[in-house]
Amino acid sequence: MDLWVTEKQTEIMAISYKVKKTLHSEKTEFQELAVVETEQFGRMLLLDGIIQTTIGEEFVYHEMMAHVPLNTHPNPKKVLVIGGGDGGVIREVVKHPAVEQAVLCEIDRRVVEVSRKYLPEISCGLDDPKVTVLYADGIKHVKENPNTYDVIIVDSTDPIGPAEALFTEDFYHSVAGALTKDGIMVAQTESPFVTPDLVLSCYKRISSALPLTKVYLAHVPVYPTGMWSITMGSKTYDPEKVDKTKISSYPTRYYTPEIHYAAFALPKFVQDLLNEKAK
Amino acid sequence: MDLWVTEKQTEIMAISYKVKKTLHSEKTEFQELAVVETEQFGRMLLLDGIIQTTIGEEFVYHEMMAHVPLNTHPNPKKVLVIGGGDGGVIREVVKHPAVEQAVLCEIDRRVVEVSRKYLPEISCGLDDPKVTVLYADGIKHVKENPNTYDVIIVDSTDPIGPAEALFTEDFYHSVAGALTKDGIMVAQTESPFVTPDLVLSCYKRISSALPLTKVYLAHVPVYPTGMWSITMGSKTYDPEKVDKTKISSYPTRYYTPEIHYAAFALPKFVQDLLNEKAK
Repeated sequence: MDLWVTEKQTEIMAISYKVKKTLHSEKTEFQELAVVETEQFGRMLLLDGIIQTTIGEEFVYHEMMAHVPLNTHPNPKKVLVIGGGDGGVIREVVKHPAVEQAVLCEIDRRVVEVSRKYLPEISCGLDDPKVTVLYADGIKHVKENPNTYDVIIVDSTDPIGPAEALFTEDFYHSVAGALTKDGIMVAQTESPFVTPDLVLSCYKRISSALPLTKVYLAHVPVYPTGMWSITMGSKTYDPEKVDKTKISSYPTRYYTPEIHYAAFALPKFVQDLLNEKAK
Repeated sequence: MDLWVTEKQTEIMAISYKVKKTLHSEKTEFQELAVVETEQFGRMLLLDGIIQTTIGEEFVYHEMMAHVPLNTHPNPKKVLVIGGGDGGVIREVVKHPAVEQAVLCEIDRRVVEVSRKYLPEISCGLDDPKVTVLYADGIKHVKENPNTYDVIIVDSTDPIGPAEALFTEDFYHSVAGALTKDGIMVAQTESPFVTPDLVLSCYKRISSALPLTKVYLAHVPVYPTGMWSITMGSKTYDPEKVDKTKISSYPTRYYTPEIHYAAFALPKFVQDLLNEKAK
């Protein structure tokens, strides 16, 4: 049998990977959850049929979500990850020497449990003594914890279904409220090629909540077009004014001090898109 | 009818785009040539079923192939493009104010003719008075024209079939011979995620022919994984030591002086791959 998993990334574009076998499939309280083993990138996590991460290239997204804000903040002691139940971002967060406490707030307990079972290379960070896992609604959590976190990382699924509320101006204001006085947030904000309007609206919404907002890019093979945007909102620190020689050194596979800067060099069409903000 | 074009990018990975209609399809002397109209990226050129370029995102690849070497060389008067019959790289080359003569050496006349008809936005540069189009074998051309070009751009198809010879050490030595004493070459060298061995072998082979060899990256949505490598071999000039304030200004949609530098900031796993060269 020639088995393939196909994600219709949009109504008019699809990506397919040859599958060795299906390891897990269930309908949780919140979504359809599956793990398949692909030939190209090894084990792959899907939520509602949308590829979330794979063993072969997960490091790009997880490192870029974690290390850019962590190395922009001079002392990120307390970090919150909203979503990200696979544990990949948390695994990166606890690498940073300044981090004392890392909280994962994931609404769907089954994502964590299944990731622990089938994606141990990704979920291993969840066992770190610095980590607390909460099975809770991230929106409620940030509202109930003002002035608490140095860095908040919004590792959401796409803005359809359960994650839609994680892309609203209201939510970003709650996140800003949950940050300490010099805190930093980042959120994954999709592809400038496929959903430029969404990239722009996230930029505008985060800008409305936090004074310094910048977009950076990473090459994520399994996401539509491979060009993925992450938007940072910061109260004080500018990610492009970090002293490169002071960036913490720990093992990474994508992130480097040079990549920290290079990621903010936006292609002209992305710059032009964000400049529409002024209009 | 729900019509899709699917490219098996490897035996285990495929990308598909919804198609409005097929505009052209023929078997030329060298390859199968097709133009389809996709919903995502507009008109798309395929050779032997492999996506070459699309109206919607062609600017990334064409600009990055042309402007990085052109702005590394202080006076790129004479430029050769091998392959690239769609004309996209040539269109970018003639934007540069120093360029006096641009030669396109394409083996398959039908690629040029069909691109002129169906992809005028891409092929329009072919009509520039600075441009000469040769329907010839690029390998023969560089051998027969020593010490001639300031910049040579190898815009080949994948290293299977007709283009295989454009990825050999022999060929890179011939290119080096066709360059003037301070000349620069670049070649598209595929995806570090999918064909790391090829990226490494191109790097080694170009290094054997030219003293300063560097790899840079661009986000090309329609190529496998979206992360595409381009390898530069240079006799004298270092692309990372260009005076940013002296980079020529002309309209672009991806390339900027900041992108020129950022593109050379390689992810750690790509750095590690290239460091294997020393082993």
